[in-house]
Amino acid sequence: MKISRRVASQRSDVAPFEAMETMREAAALEAAGRDIAHLEVGQPGEPAPKAALEAVRSALRDPLGYTVALGLAPLREGVADLYRARHGLVIDPSRIVATTGSSAGFQLAFIAAFNPGARIAMAEPGYPSYRQIASALGLTPVGLPVGPENRWTPTAAMLDAAAAEAPIDGVLIASPANPTGVAATRSELAALTGWCATNGAWFISDEIYHGLTYDEPAASALEFDNDAIIVSSFSKYFAMTGWRIGWMVLPEPLLRPIERLAQNLFICPPHVSQIAALAALSAEAALELEARREVYAANRDYLMRMLPELKLGGAAPCDGAFYLYFQLPDGAPNSKEWCAKLLHEAGVATTPGLDFDPRRGERTARISFAGSPEEVRKGAERIAAWAAKQDY
Amino acid sequence: MKISRRVASQRSDVAPFEAMETMREAAALEAAGRDIAHLEVGQPGEPAPKAALEAVRSALRDPLGYTVALGLAPLREGVADLYRARHGLVIDPSRIVATTGSSAGFQLAFIAAFNPGARIAMAEPGYPSYRQIASALGLTPVGLPVGPENRWTPTAAMLDAAAAEAPIDGVLIASPANPTGVAATRSELAALTGWCATNGAWFISDEIYHGLTYDEPAASALEFDNDAIIVSSFSKYFAMTGWRIGWMVLPEPLLRPIERLAQNLFICPPHVSQIAALAALSAEAALELEARREVYAANRDYLMRMLPELKLGGAAPCDGAFYLYFQLPDGAPNSKEWCAKLLHEAGVATTPGLDFDPRRGERTARISFAGSPEEVRKGAERIAAWAAKQDY
Repeated sequence: MKISRRVASQRSDVAPFEAMETMREAAALEAAGRDIAHLEVGQPGEPAPKAALEAVRSALRDPLGYTVALGLAPLREGVADLYRARHGLVIDPSRIVATTGSSAGFQLAFIAAFNPGARIAMAEPGYPSYRQIASALGLTPVGLPVGPENRWTPTAAMLDAAAAEAPIDGVLIASPANPTGVAATRSELAALTGWCATNGAWFISDEIYHGLTYDEPAASALEFDNDAIIVSSFSKYFAMTGWRIGWMVLPEPLLRPIERLAQNLFICPPHVSQIAALAALSAEAALELEARREVYAANRDYLMRMLPELKLGGAAPCDGAFYLYFQLPDGAPNSKEWCAKLLHEAGVATTPGLDFDPRRGERTARISFAGSPEEVRKGAERIAAWAAKQDY
Repeated sequence: MKISRRVASQRSDVAPFEAMETMREAAALEAAGRDIAHLEVGQPGEPAPKAALEAVRSALRDPLGYTVALGLAPLREGVADLYRARHGLVIDPSRIVATTGSSAGFQLAFIAAFNPGARIAMAEPGYPSYRQIASALGLTPVGLPVGPENRWTPTAAMLDAAAAEAPIDGVLIASPANPTGVAATRSELAALTGWCATNGAWFISDEIYHGLTYDEPAASALEFDNDAIIVSSFSKYFAMTGWRIGWMVLPEPLLRPIERLAQNLFICPPHVSQIAALAALSAEAALELEARREVYAANRDYLMRMLPELKLGGAAPCDGAFYLYFQLPDGAPNSKEWCAKLLHEAGVATTPGLDFDPRRGERTARISFAGSPEEVRKGAERIAAWAAKQDY
């Protein structure tokens, strides 16, 4: 008998998603009877809007079979309308693709736009799955370290520097960003999309936190680059995380490749979620969702006021999304240990910065304020009481 | 300005899934007012079982957020119970992973078990997305031409021959198979899993048509190889295609790699679909689903009797699933043209064999009898009337 080659592949050796690991650990503590304040995942405290749930109830009367791979036509038209309303852009619905969450969007974009070995530049800190999906698909993530000195946003100069080492094939920017909440300004977006056009690199714009801004609305990369690849989702603003439904806006050269890939890799996004998403785009849902944005805004203001008591400093400006990304106090243990102690000793789940920044995340952590005001207040009060007892 | 590298990747150059293309074309004809008999996709005519829909209605009262990546614990336990009931196997629920349909299962299996360039042997004809997913993920599908002479099932001798050219890293077998409906016998499965164990290759068993057999129940690869990778789904027997929910049973070495990959690539399967799937495993649902199997069996018998009138020959033995795979008559045009003519002239959607067999599929096509008896009868009568007018 030969030596077995039945081992896991090298490319499956991706890092775990710590936010999910924390969620699992928190669930285990809860199963053992502990009360946990959940400030770890970007999980809106409220369910999908009422209109979406009502649409699902009605749809259960009909068989919910496969849909075409790109999604139901009215949903694609509804998303096109959203771009007209939010950005004044007229997008042909044929360029819009419904996806099984933004997760499927990133997979499709990475496979369709890049050959193995391609280098994709992205902010560090950033959403951890960008790196892991890229690695699993044979791409090379190139981290662009951002911080307060550049408003946590990559610059064209950073891209020049990265490209001097080896060509950059794609640039992936989230605005508003996870974990920092920072939204790129119009001039920053123009500079970054311009760099990509000049250098023949794809621009991938993660716009899943659009709609969740607290000052001015976020700009879409499509306002600056008609060939940008947009990845977005109903998870955050529309509060539909568990429904796994999102969308892409595609440049013409990727339309057919992504249709073929979607047919084979996903068949179609969940039919029931497409129906829910369509109703979530209604005017009725908009009223409900805007009221929720006010709740996030109040959570954000509350946390900002609490920062000194929480003994957390160096927080990134939170223009949007529902995250607070901060420095741990001097003398505190590293972030994984700090988060574990906070979970076990104070019953508050947060996410260690290592998820977002493999190089500097030992000194940072993320709080999500997507939950209810009660949950956020409970968590913050527990952190404050616990922080007061630490000897640093 | 440099020459733009903004083009689709080489690996995105996968073939379209013709069954989906036909579905799209049929939908266009329907939009133009034509009545179409749908015999093209494996789409059960009935919706998810009543218990599943009732569970969804109740669940809409609670927020449906992310679940842990591997799925809800009761669902994983319920699937473990299914293996006890169907196969007398005791599987630890920790080895069971809920997935976003079997599509996600194949992606996870391929990425976790194989490095780029790995050679995966599979039956030809076979489910077309195997090849396309494998190609998109940098793997090399190795087709094993099967036919009546080997009961449409690969043999160890074929694997020896394929391995003589270059090592085979994995073998993927569906039983019952799409498009042929052939179920591997226990001795065939034992021989194939044995070959993999001896040669250190992973055995991937697509068991999504389990439950849908018309003579004896299908055996699971787990009865012969505890390290087989099982990919299955609620789409077919449980009639939940559009819900995009399935499962895997994993060997120990792949548990953590696949958990990490699932966290990053999918976050979690749709929460609402997990709830529906759990209820679909209930005793109440089983009664309903067994009654439906009787309907498929009647559809199958009806089509078998109609074969001479349909002028279709060389049909594969249909032990299970809900497909009839047959030879086109001598003198008929190639399968893509034949299916297009049948769709446009007779209003019957079928799938050309090229989807399943790139080398010999010009002379074959597939009929799905997953629909209602009325749909199947309408389609068959139209084919018979149309066939009588053809000059071959």
